[in-house]
Amino acid sequence: MKLVTAVVNGESFVGAVPEGETTVIHLRGAERAMSGTETIPASMLAAIAQGERFLARAQEVVDWALRQPKPDYVFHLAAVRLLAPIPRPAKNIFCIGKNYADHALELGGSAIPEHLIVFTKPPTTVIGHGETILRHADVTDEVDYEGELAVVIGKRGRAIGREEALDYVFGYTIINDVTARDLQERHQQYFLGKSLDTFCPMGPWIVPKSLLPHANDLRIETRVNGEVRQQASTTQLIFSLEAIIETISKGITLEPGDVIATGTPAGVGKGMNPPRFLQPGDVVEVTVEGIGTLRNQVGE
Amino acid sequence: MKLVTAVVNGESFVGAVPEGETTVIHLRGAERAMSGTETIPASMLAAIAQGERFLARAQEVVDWALRQPKPDYVFHLAAVRLLAPIPRPAKNIFCIGKNYADHALELGGSAIPEHLIVFTKPPTTVIGHGETILRHADVTDEVDYEGELAVVIGKRGRAIGREEALDYVFGYTIINDVTARDLQERHQQYFLGKSLDTFCPMGPWIVPKSLLPHANDLRIETRVNGEVRQQASTTQLIFSLEAIIETISKGITLEPGDVIATGTPAGVGKGMNPPRFLQPGDVVEVTVEGIGTLRNQVGE
Repeated sequence: MKLVTAVVNGESFVGAVPEGETTVIHLRGAERAMSGTETIPASMLAAIAQGERFLARAQEVVDWALRQPKPDYVFHLAAVRLLAPIPRPAKNIFCIGKNYADHALELGGSAIPEHLIVFTKPPTTVIGHGETILRHADVTDEVDYEGELAVVIGKRGRAIGREEALDYVFGYTIINDVTARDLQERHQQYFLGKSLDTFCPMGPWIVPKSLLPHANDLRIETRVNGEVRQQASTTQLIFSLEAIIETISKGITLEPGDVIATGTPAGVGKGMNPPRFLQPGDVVEVTVEGIGTLRNQVGE
Repeated sequence: MKLVTAVVNGESFVGAVPEGETTVIHLRGAERAMSGTETIPASMLAAIAQGERFLARAQEVVDWALRQPKPDYVFHLAAVRLLAPIPRPAKNIFCIGKNYADHALELGGSAIPEHLIVFTKPPTTVIGHGETILRHADVTDEVDYEGELAVVIGKRGRAIGREEALDYVFGYTIINDVTARDLQERHQQYFLGKSLDTFCPMGPWIVPKSLLPHANDLRIETRVNGEVRQQASTTQLIFSLEAIIETISKGITLEPGDVIATGTPAGVGKGMNPPRFLQPGDVVEVTVEGIGTLRNQVGE
């Protein structure tokens, strides 16, 4: 079961894509039909806040819905518009910099970091699978892609130890940490170059943690117009998911719905000789094993 | 009129402190008594989103309330608990780095920036006037203060020109951009060192823009246990308020309720010889002319 935020007839809802299916079940609608009750929330943030209770109920609803004939709360995936699974996070996305050794090196001889590098992207950067990445030609000449595995936090906590870190994870999704390289350099701190509107494609969905038990061992690949640019495994992360959660949460309370993009491997446009930045019409696809493919086109 | 978020009997509300008074008017309660209607929202974020309509109505309510005898929607300032005026921003606080030349130099010979430096602090850092700054002794040995003028955005916009920038301002408040210097350095990007829980005291209130027409010419002073440490004027800002709004909004949509801390002048603890970091029990006060004084004590 994959969890989506989708729109049909102008209404956005939390949906589930059952394993092996190409349909979306409107969870709240199906629950109402099943039991006459509505415990499943209308937004993914509220669903994540319910945690295990939501996941158990969603699975129950999905199992029931799959046995019904032609229900009106099931849609073909092609018939719904997907938003980012969390269309409007309640704070900036946490992002990890230089977390694959070969990427740290391709960006120009800087050493492999000894300590976690963290920066953020505001909620205004978030777009869903299939939405358009703005080119921002008046602001930057160097738009670049960064395919990344992202962690969605499920439980509030501070000073979370490495051993228990994954207990605080709700699930996983994919993020394209789109970056204006010229701004990233010119303004010293990464923030501005990382934060232009639409620069955080996220999705297409969240895979609950229980369905992805080996998140530190997933293949990740980024393609531009079909050409493979990044190819790596999350085994190569310098700081593992557990280490990231431990370090961030030392003094920062993590909250349900927080999103952490875990860093990108080598192969970004800036690292090529000569650099190859994104152009209008380019299609960027990021595939993470066990999750799926996040696809976005660059606009004019 | 200053605008507060305050708590009485467990209920938080938007209040107004009339000019020259030491009372807080519960705006929604007073409006109800005045007219039987409730157009004034329960939260500051919703009030800011109403913009001029809210400000005009609030002034009307205040003028009426001041003429009533012993009303039950007016409290002495000492009898309410102030929260940060925006207790839970909807995204990270935008912060400007090295925006006073003497501060850029005191931090160790780095040049005066040619381009705006922007980083962020998550909503979990925000505390109000009088709340305790956590010492985080297990995470950092170098907690430092940074007194700053902060801008509250009132209107949604992107690509805002310098000439119209102040049209997008709702008002002003004070921020203490508390910083763990060791983390700030060790982790390369500023974010982690700036983002420990309670590291963004904000308040005590918001002064609407119309009451502070010369925000680029305000005295600012920070004291630790009464000793003056920072003393400057916002005339010394390298990047003016207008320039900050113009540069951030080039590719980032600013939204009502966004908060931008504009940078700190020389005199931080890290810049002293030897450095003097904050200790448990220390009291930090930041005074900005025309706004007031934000006071917080450091905890154990």
